[in-house]
Amino acid sequence: MFDFNFANPTQILFGKKKIAEIKDRIPVDSRVLITYGGGSVKKNGTLDEVLAALSGHTVFEFSGIEPNPSFETLMKAVDVVHTNSIDFLLAVGGGSVIDGTKFIAAAAVFEGDPWDILVKHGAGIKKALPFGSVLTLPATGSEMNSGGVVTRKSLQAKLAFMSPLVFPLFSVLDPEKTYTLPAKQISNGVVDAFVHVVEQYLTYPVNGKVQDRFAEGLLLTLIEEGPKALENPKDYEVRSNLMWVATLALNGLIGAGVPHDWATHMIGHEITAVHGLDHAQTLAVVLPNLLFVCQENKKDKLLQYAERVWGITEGDSEQRITEAIEKTRDFFELMQVKTRLSDYGLGKDSIPKLVEQLQAHGMKALGERQDITLEVSREILERSL
Amino acid sequence: MFDFNFANPTQILFGKKKIAEIKDRIPVDSRVLITYGGGSVKKNGTLDEVLAALSGHTVFEFSGIEPNPSFETLMKAVDVVHTNSIDFLLAVGGGSVIDGTKFIAAAAVFEGDPWDILVKHGAGIKKALPFGSVLTLPATGSEMNSGGVVTRKSLQAKLAFMSPLVFPLFSVLDPEKTYTLPAKQISNGVVDAFVHVVEQYLTYPVNGKVQDRFAEGLLLTLIEEGPKALENPKDYEVRSNLMWVATLALNGLIGAGVPHDWATHMIGHEITAVHGLDHAQTLAVVLPNLLFVCQENKKDKLLQYAERVWGITEGDSEQRITEAIEKTRDFFELMQVKTRLSDYGLGKDSIPKLVEQLQAHGMKALGERQDITLEVSREILERSL
Repeated sequence: MFDFNFANPTQILFGKKKIAEIKDRIPVDSRVLITYGGGSVKKNGTLDEVLAALSGHTVFEFSGIEPNPSFETLMKAVDVVHTNSIDFLLAVGGGSVIDGTKFIAAAAVFEGDPWDILVKHGAGIKKALPFGSVLTLPATGSEMNSGGVVTRKSLQAKLAFMSPLVFPLFSVLDPEKTYTLPAKQISNGVVDAFVHVVEQYLTYPVNGKVQDRFAEGLLLTLIEEGPKALENPKDYEVRSNLMWVATLALNGLIGAGVPHDWATHMIGHEITAVHGLDHAQTLAVVLPNLLFVCQENKKDKLLQYAERVWGITEGDSEQRITEAIEKTRDFFELMQVKTRLSDYGLGKDSIPKLVEQLQAHGMKALGERQDITLEVSREILERSL
Repeated sequence: MFDFNFANPTQILFGKKKIAEIKDRIPVDSRVLITYGGGSVKKNGTLDEVLAALSGHTVFEFSGIEPNPSFETLMKAVDVVHTNSIDFLLAVGGGSVIDGTKFIAAAAVFEGDPWDILVKHGAGIKKALPFGSVLTLPATGSEMNSGGVVTRKSLQAKLAFMSPLVFPLFSVLDPEKTYTLPAKQISNGVVDAFVHVVEQYLTYPVNGKVQDRFAEGLLLTLIEEGPKALENPKDYEVRSNLMWVATLALNGLIGAGVPHDWATHMIGHEITAVHGLDHAQTLAVVLPNLLFVCQENKKDKLLQYAERVWGITEGDSEQRITEAIEKTRDFFELMQVKTRLSDYGLGKDSIPKLVEQLQAHGMKALGERQDITLEVSREILERSL
């Protein structure tokens, strides 16, 4: 096992009616900016529930944070923070809203050009406004971690940042708040959480036995519960398990002390930035092909994955690995997320631009061994057609 | 899944040479009291390493915190805190030292009689001194939780307390620091961690799928690594896994949103208080018999445990449960912890006093359904002879 430092201070408030507890978590004299997305939280009543809980607080609203939140939009929110002397943020939504709110929290008190927060991947953050979240979409894990991803539309750049100063103080996880989600968002969320686990698990073995067992537990739960969530959108138990799995998939725990890959995310980010595919769609396209191309490097863990997650024990190593990768792809398809670039209307001619973007963003040595060169990324993309 | 609140802010510093990092975690103008036990940390060099890391700090020492730390000893440490205007505590040792230090942290600034901290199980704690720990013995999980157990020798009372104010700020987990532990302490630690997991897992099903998978992952790792730790005391990988498992066994995560039992601990505490058995010895004695006596209540989870942890799939329910309980007992014996009261020289005549003690401490309705009455506890103890 590698040496590691791990801490995660976010207070999780999990269950029905937990939104009511936020009034005790936000100082009553705060000037609160509630941030949200396209308005679904307004339609489905979640925003009203939040406003009712904060009836004694001074509250402002900022809406319009888009999926793959943009630097341009978020800087408008920073203006709202300054204009209204906001001192507490409350994100109500999914990972995009929470990621965006982390950026607002840091950018509002940043000395210098906030773009540097992204260019330096968060290293320059010295302080941030306090904030909490009310999660409505289990997927990204942003509700219990210290990272975010922001897109600068004008540059077609999608950049990640991290800082221990942008952990949410608290996050409300009420599974009932996911009942009204469109099926597509549940599908995407399950795939996103699945790939988060895989990026921290399917690397090379370092004898992190607990991390492996926990990762496998999360994957098994996603495989069991994901399809049920599409069949029965109001099954509280299913939604509960999905919500908690997605949070634990990327809260730092399973990744502590083990190697990480993240190449699927980095390649996927470019596809989103250039062609606008959903984040999870890009992951479903890239992952199976990345596992295939990198199978020699990942051999030991792929065999463990085949056996412990998919119960594959027959055949030689190559057969078991191939079957595990196929089962992974089948699971994404079962979750109604297509796994080929061609499913999204993209052909071979899209690949040079994607590789060029990877190069422009310094992504020349990806993966747990930094040996996914631009050529290997090209090979992965070509297999993804 | 039950509703739950979960947070755990403790910073874990895991790996070789991590003691050096504590200098950055303790304000340099602090007056630090280092607390430890019988002196093994002095002999094996750990204390010197801690002192070297704190060479710029003002440091005092308090030694002599015993296994099952006593109220009487800890109140002497509180005097040392007051006399020397101590404002930061650093526990160097195992669970007893850390539990004791939590009590010192709360008692030193407690308004009223510190005995009330234990009588009210921590509810009265309004503040506590900040403290960290350097763990030398993987077992109790105290290094990453907010609870402790203290014994008042004069009353033969062993009482637990909890408060979010007594989470360690940081804990150093350096597996090399466990190399010099006597085999008995490794044995006890593995059994202790195993039973911590079981107390949060073998109850009744609430569809907490992740909690179950995580609990099973911890148990499987203990079963794999425990015996190796006895065979090869300097195997870094084995010690790493044991150390991280023991911490995760009782840091609140696997117990969030699921029922808890803890009857084995409560009955075991009385055996320690009256007869001085090691904590883990009492657990190894009580658990198999509690599982046997309560098997109807725990049937579904016992069958799951039999299959997922021990790979038992043959036979009818009763046979599978019996086999799983026997395998549990065999594992404790393999870990060189005896599982019968008679192994410790205790006979049937010891039982009335133990039941009386349970009654005196209000333990009349134990277990996840509060249906382990004094009579059921008596039955468990009689089966433990």
